[in-house]
Amino acid sequence: MNIEEKLLFKKETIEAALDRLLPQGDTLLTQAMRYAVLSGGKRFRSLLALSSGECFGISQEVVLPFACAVELIHNYSLIHDDLPMMDDDDFRRGKLSCHKAYREDIALLAGDGLLTLAFEVIASAPVEAEYAMRKERLILEVAQSAGIDGMVGGQLLDITLTPDNLSQERLLDLMARKTGALILVAVKVGPILAGASPPEFQALVDYGWNIGMAFQMRDDILDLPETSSRASSLRPNAASYFGVKEANTRLKNHVQSAIEALERASLGSEELRFLASRLLELNRRK
Amino acid sequence: MNIEEKLLFKKETIEAALDRLLPQGDTLLTQAMRYAVLSGGKRFRSLLALSSGECFGISQEVVLPFACAVELIHNYSLIHDDLPMMDDDDFRRGKLSCHKAYREDIALLAGDGLLTLAFEVIASAPVEAEYAMRKERLILEVAQSAGIDGMVGGQLLDITLTPDNLSQERLLDLMARKTGALILVAVKVGPILAGASPPEFQALVDYGWNIGMAFQMRDDILDLPETSSRASSLRPNAASYFGVKEANTRLKNHVQSAIEALERASLGSEELRFLASRLLELNRRK
Repeated sequence: MNIEEKLLFKKETIEAALDRLLPQGDTLLTQAMRYAVLSGGKRFRSLLALSSGECFGISQEVVLPFACAVELIHNYSLIHDDLPMMDDDDFRRGKLSCHKAYREDIALLAGDGLLTLAFEVIASAPVEAEYAMRKERLILEVAQSAGIDGMVGGQLLDITLTPDNLSQERLLDLMARKTGALILVAVKVGPILAGASPPEFQALVDYGWNIGMAFQMRDDILDLPETSSRASSLRPNAASYFGVKEANTRLKNHVQSAIEALERASLGSEELRFLASRLLELNRRK
Repeated sequence: MNIEEKLLFKKETIEAALDRLLPQGDTLLTQAMRYAVLSGGKRFRSLLALSSGECFGISQEVVLPFACAVELIHNYSLIHDDLPMMDDDDFRRGKLSCHKAYREDIALLAGDGLLTLAFEVIASAPVEAEYAMRKERLILEVAQSAGIDGMVGGQLLDITLTPDNLSQERLLDLMARKTGALILVAVKVGPILAGASPPEFQALVDYGWNIGMAFQMRDDILDLPETSSRASSLRPNAASYFGVKEANTRLKNHVQSAIEALERASLGSEELRFLASRLLELNRRK
């Protein structure tokens, strides 16, 4: 298999695992949770987790719950971000957003349900008892990446920064928290579970931080010309702040730095390299 | 110290710990999180956790993070439940509800932030390495109690059950999930961390389940005559469903069963007994 085929295979594994982990049943809530998670998405974060685990020789069975947890958290955040009181987005991945397909109250609960499900999934992940401390560390890092030092804090910046109080430092902080934090923790899954050496760990952190920034930079470049959103068109946008030319340069530099970090670590990380490079493709949605 | 003084002392310990665990800083988000958590509340759930830990000889230092996590989850649920799309409550504990004191979007994020903070707090709780599996089990049980089999699922029933589709079974299921699940897990903190014997564990589960049901029954009795809420006045209410007389009988029976369960276990559980008995006092808010 070439890399694209291997990633496609991993993606199918993730889809099947998410389908299995999500609650069954015909309540509006389970329907809304399944609709939000299983309606497409490139599974970028969960692929990173699986590839990062593979780099360090961790079996997929062990890594998969963490990969799925990251994906569940990503999707909870999309549901809450799309709500009328936040970005007020009617569409997501070319379909109605969760609160439009269901109701606002159901969407709120679906988000809350996905966030708690993520912790259920990783708390019950089958990790050997001797590695319990590594698993605890990962639960902590996942919670931190989702919390006010990560995604929730990034979302706060997204809704409170205005052209008047926006600075480069604040914009980069927003990107690192709103988008970068969860991507970084996905990348850390492998080295934390494997107990990687400090240089390997640092290399993966550098990789993860850079692709997180690259990911949001790319998103902002692609979101610049038009947007399906109302409130979100007023949100800080890196391509608008830096200008498209500098944004493209920054995107390339982040991808370059990410790949250099991988090379420093001398790991078998072709997939991670490929996932980074793909962020340079601006002719299609991620 | 008598029991009331001991509980007051524990409550002060909880208040101080929450104050320490909540983020500092002057953003709207940290203000809203602190406002919601530190604006009163009897700390019933966290007191249960501390008393349950003491029953089994677990040091307060070990139990406190779990007690605080349960309190943070309780408060996240209140913030989200008060939102206009849910119960639309303008007041909470005699003060403006979080979204009224701040804004809806900030309140949404404050709830999300508290829920993730709860998992941060328990994931970083200092538990000796040999007890890591017990801690993992507790993280899992906390997540389950908050998730769709617990609070989120109970909230779904709360907003979707109508007089037409309400049955006794569904109403009791609603109470057990919306309110009972988190109270039960608070009570389980001691026996799980201590590795209690199966009979002791079962006794505490019986206690926890019964006071959870008693708590909601009491709440519904007290909420029957008037309500400050708009949407919530249409929600299923056990005192209205059973009638006040039967609701009172059920409340007493649950408290009685809870106390009998404690007696079976022969633990030094005066505080747990006292906390159960106090649910019979209907002349004041809990």
